[in-house]
Parts: sequence; C-alpha cells; structure tokens
Amino acid sequence: MEKIKVLVVGYGNVGRGVLLSLANQPDMEVVGIASRSVERVRASVKDIPVVPVDQAEEFLKLGADVAILCGGSKNDLPQQGPELVKYINTVDSFDNHSCIPQYYAAMDAAAKAAKHVAVISTGWDPGIFSLERTLANAFLPGARSYGFYGLSEAGGLSMGHSDALRTIKGVADARQFTHAVSSAIDQVRNGENPAFEAGDMHTRECFVVLEEGANAAAIEAEIKAMPGYFAPYKTTVNFVTQEELDSKYKGFPHDGCVVAASVTGKGNQATVEYRCKWASNPEATANVLVAHARAAVRMNKAGDCGAKTILDIPARLLSPLSYEELLKKFM
Amino acid sequence: MEKIKVLVVGYGNVGRGVLLSLANQPDMEVVGIASRSVERVRASVKDIPVVPVDQAEEFLKLGADVAILCGGSKNDLPQQGPELVKYINTVDSFDNHSCIPQYYAAMDAAAKAAKHVAVISTGWDPGIFSLERTLANAFLPGARSYGFYGLSEAGGLSMGHSDALRTIKGVADARQFTHAVSSAIDQVRNGENPAFEAGDMHTRECFVVLEEGANAAAIEAEIKAMPGYFAPYKTTVNFVTQEELDSKYKGFPHDGCVVAASVTGKGNQATVEYRCKWASNPEATANVLVAHARAAVRMNKAGDCGAKTILDIPARLLSPLSYEELLKKFM
Repeated sequence: MEKIKVLVVGYGNVGRGVLLSLANQPDMEVVGIASRSVERVRASVKDIPVVPVDQAEEFLKLGADVAILCGGSKNDLPQQGPELVKYINTVDSFDNHSCIPQYYAAMDAAAKAAKHVAVISTGWDPGIFSLERTLANAFLPGARSYGFYGLSEAGGLSMGHSDALRTIKGVADARQFTHAVSSAIDQVRNGENPAFEAGDMHTRECFVVLEEGANAAAIEAEIKAMPGYFAPYKTTVNFVTQEELDSKYKGFPHDGCVVAASVTGKGNQATVEYRCKWASNPEATANVLVAHARAAVRMNKAGDCGAKTILDIPARLLSPLSYEELLKKFM
Repeated sequence: MEKIKVLVVGYGNVGRGVLLSLANQPDMEVVGIASRSVERVRASVKDIPVVPVDQAEEFLKLGADVAILCGGSKNDLPQQGPELVKYINTVDSFDNHSCIPQYYAAMDAAAKAAKHVAVISTGWDPGIFSLERTLANAFLPGARSYGFYGLSEAGGLSMGHSDALRTIKGVADARQFTHAVSSAIDQVRNGENPAFEAGDMHTRECFVVLEEGANAAAIEAEIKAMPGYFAPYKTTVNFVTQEELDSKYKGFPHDGCVVAASVTGKGNQATVEYRCKWASNPEATANVLVAHARAAVRMNKAGDCGAKTILDIPARLLSPLSYEELLKKFM
C-alpha cells in the first residue's frame, strides 16, 4: 500500500501534534514541513525536509498529497488557505465560527478552480462538535444543542482568553481556565431547552503573574470589565508567581460536551450527549486534522473537489480500516 | 418544496414510532403503510392507505420515494429487504451484528441491480454507536471502543432477553433490564483499555410473572443457566405480579454509551464518550430511520445506488437544514 504523503504547514503546538499523530498512522507519512521560519524549524527538526511556505516550487518537489495547515485563524489561514489550495489538497482548523461561511466560500472557489479538496474548520470545535450538533438535530427534531467547555475539575485552558489577559498592561503572564456550570448542563439534560446567556453556562478562572509594581486591584477590575472575554461571566482572578503558573497550571488540557434533549413520539424524553477530554488540546486538533487529511486525499482521488467540512465526509473516509473491517468490527 | 414520500413497512412499535417521527419532519410525509396484516392495521390507522406488503403493484401506486422497513432482523428483513429494494429505496435497522456483512452483500447486490439505495442497519446500535465507534477509532488511533447499556438507575429494557425469559415453561410474562457495571466504565475512561468478558460489563435484572403452580426456584435456576443470554452475567431474578410488571416496569426505556480512551502525542490522555438515553427505544430507532430515509432519497437522486451504512453517509444528508444553515448554525 502506498502511504499518503503529508506536508505539515506551520510548526507550532498543532504542527508538532500533527507530526506525532502521523507517526501513529499505518497509512500516512510526513514528507516535509513548510514554515515561514525555516531556520528556526530546521534547528529543532532533524530528518524531515523544511521548506519556505511561500515558495510553492520548493514544497511541490516533496510530492505531498495533502497539506495540513496548522496556522492560526486570525492571521494565517485567511491568506494561506486560498493560496495553498491552488497547489495541493488542504486541511485546516479555521475556528472563527462566525466567519466560517465566508471562509468556506473563499476556499471553495479556490479549491474548485484548482480541482483540489479543501477540508476546512475541523478539530474538536468546530469539527467533531459541529458533527454532533448536526446529528443531534437530525435525530431529535426540535432539540437545541448546547456546547459546554471545562467539565473537569481543573477546567479547560482557553488560549484566546489567556492571550487576552496578556494584553493587559502590568500582566507578565497569565492562563485562563474555563469552567462549565454543571447545573446548566443538568437543565439541558432534563429537556428544558433553556435560553441561556453566555454567563449562565460558563465561569472563568484566571491565573495572573503581575509585573513588578503592577496594581493588582486595578488589573483585576480591568479583567472583569473586559467586554466579550470576561464581562459577561462570573470571573475569578488569582494572582500567582511565574513558578506556580508554570508548575500548577501548565499544559493544554481541555474538555467539553455537546448536549441535546428533546422528545420522541408523544412526549418520550430523549437525550444525547457527546463528551471529549484531552490532556493536550493542540494534539486533539492534530489528530482530527490527520484523519481528515486521509479523507481529503481519498475524496480528491475519487474525483471530488471544492471546500468540505466534517458534515460532508462519510466516516469511512476518516478511518484507516477497510470497509470490510469496519462492517465487521464497528457496525 | 416537494416533500419526501415515505412508505412505512410494518406496524409494530418501530413502525408506529416512524409515523410519529414523520409528523415532526418539515420535509417528509407518509404516503402509506405496507403490512402483512392489512385488516388489523386498517382497524387502528385512519387516513393513511394500508396495502399488502407482498403486492408490489399496490404499494408502488402510492408513489413513495423510500420505504422504511420496520420488521424484525430474524425473520422479516433477510427476506423483505432484498425483495423490496427491487422496487424502491429502503432503510432498515437490521441489528444482528455478526450477520451484517452478509446482509450488506445481499442488499448491495439487489440494490445495485435495481439502481436503488438501501441504507441498512441503522438505529442507535447498530447505527449511531457504529458511527461513534468508527470516529473514536479514527481520531484516537489505538483506542478500543466499548459499548455499555443501561447506565441509568432503572437500566435498559432488552427486548431480546425479555423474549428469552418468556420462552421458559411456567413464565407467564417477563421483562429484562440490563445494567452497566459502572466501575467497568470508569476503567475504560481511565485509559486502561481492559479486556473484558461480557459479564464484566453488564448485569441482568429479570422481572418474572409466574404461571399458577410454577416452581419459582427451578425457573430461577433455569434462567441463570441460560447460555448466552444469562449464564455469563450476574443475574437477579425478581418474581412479581402481572400488575406490578405492567405498572412499575412498563415502557421501552433504554440508554447506553460508547467510550474510548487512548493517548495523543507522547502519553497525553484522551477520552471520548457518546451517550444517549431514550424513554422509548423503538421511537429512538424510528427517529434515526427517518433521518436516514431522507439521506437515502438524496443519495439516489444524486445517482448513487447500492447498500449503505451510516458510515457511508455525510451528516448533511441526514439533516433537514440547508447547507448554508448548517454552516451558520452548527459549524
């Protein structure tokens, strides 16, 4: 069996996770890394060719079947996606939910023109959770789907909220853990289909390292008033030392669930719930990206092209197993 | 928008559930019921044409786009499936797991010859759980998926085990509730990937109404020794009156979960879990069948034919929503 050849674009947390995930796949292999910082990446990666991401002729020489784009949704993907899909099938985790229709349209046009497949916005949310929301709604008409994050005691690390804390003057470092409000989850499970405000579903816990001489009380007030990020939520601010932050609140743990409840027939309660828990959030995204890279190549080989989401992809295309094995082992 | 026209084949618990589910779908309508017992069904259903299932010319007059086969896996579907798919797209919940590859082959040949789509073996297990097992394995390479049934305190009603109890001489009526062993679920969540025997995962609770003069002790011993059904499990037998059975242990509640755990990267724990809970098990199956009937018609209209499982079907085809709505609401 010829292995699917993968180009990894970007070498941050997700890119490193993709390399680790590819090593676990029986049918896939990495053929190179494309980066804006070729020298930096070359210094830490041996045995894998590293090429500049803006030189298509360079990465095309590597003969990849698909590129996994591991950049960010804010600055990298909106430019990189439509550009790279001209040359190769792509998979990305574009996660700015409200801009997905617009990103889909841009990627669809570029992918169709090049006759490539571009799987967009896949990871665990958007991605698995999008699929579970769609399935819950299809199997339980009338059910609203609710997403909760940070179910475990430690909560889930939010990179976006951590970054927001670090923009505040006087903050040397910070990490933000999201907690689901468990009574809110119970309300959904009970079939109440409640109309929540954002602050009813989650609370936010901040661990902040102050710069020398910073005013703790003023910073706490500034955090709690930050619109969008913290103002709508019950927010706790804990001041810690850099050592505490690095030892007690390290890593990228995250978890969450999609819950939906409705009735079948004449008032028979029905609830569906999907949960996932990851010690490493970027590695979770990486694993989902890798399975979708397999699907992208298979779809393109079958003659398909254009932008795709997880909602377009039959599960068999994500699996390394043959259809016969799937029928026998998983049906 | 022209509605998808559905023929319901069989009028048992699942067939009645399909009628109730169709009433909730914005884009589908029932055009008739096909049954072996036309007179009996006509007596209880008004306003819907009822035709004999063995007279194709009769049900073809109804102009259905798809037939939802609501018969049993033991006697009905192996005959009915390959016969009916000659005339119309079909959807069924064939649930004899070990025979699925064989049933798939028979349905695939018949469906391809007739250029129809036959969605087989869909409900919650096989069906949703098959999908979740496949996804868990694709996203967490190396994870084993485990299915548990009867998570709630009351447990889940097993029709097959209830039927098995009723075959015993001296048993007037009986119902069997399956209970998951919660410590076994915890072992899976902890990432132990344990090698369970069947009896490690579930226990069985029987509620039995005796015929007059029956020997309770002998019947309890016979139940506990029944190979396959009860012998491998810790089994409790409770003798109750018919009134107790009908009032305390009524209905068709069932629930279950698929759990899988593994690691990402270098030893980062990862767990995924899907749960569903249904006050009415046959209505759950009915709701899943109805969503797949929508997909069957769409696939056939797009030129596809042959046998399909839930593993072949992109989620967007199951949903009544447009792709634009899905991108906006669920991605």
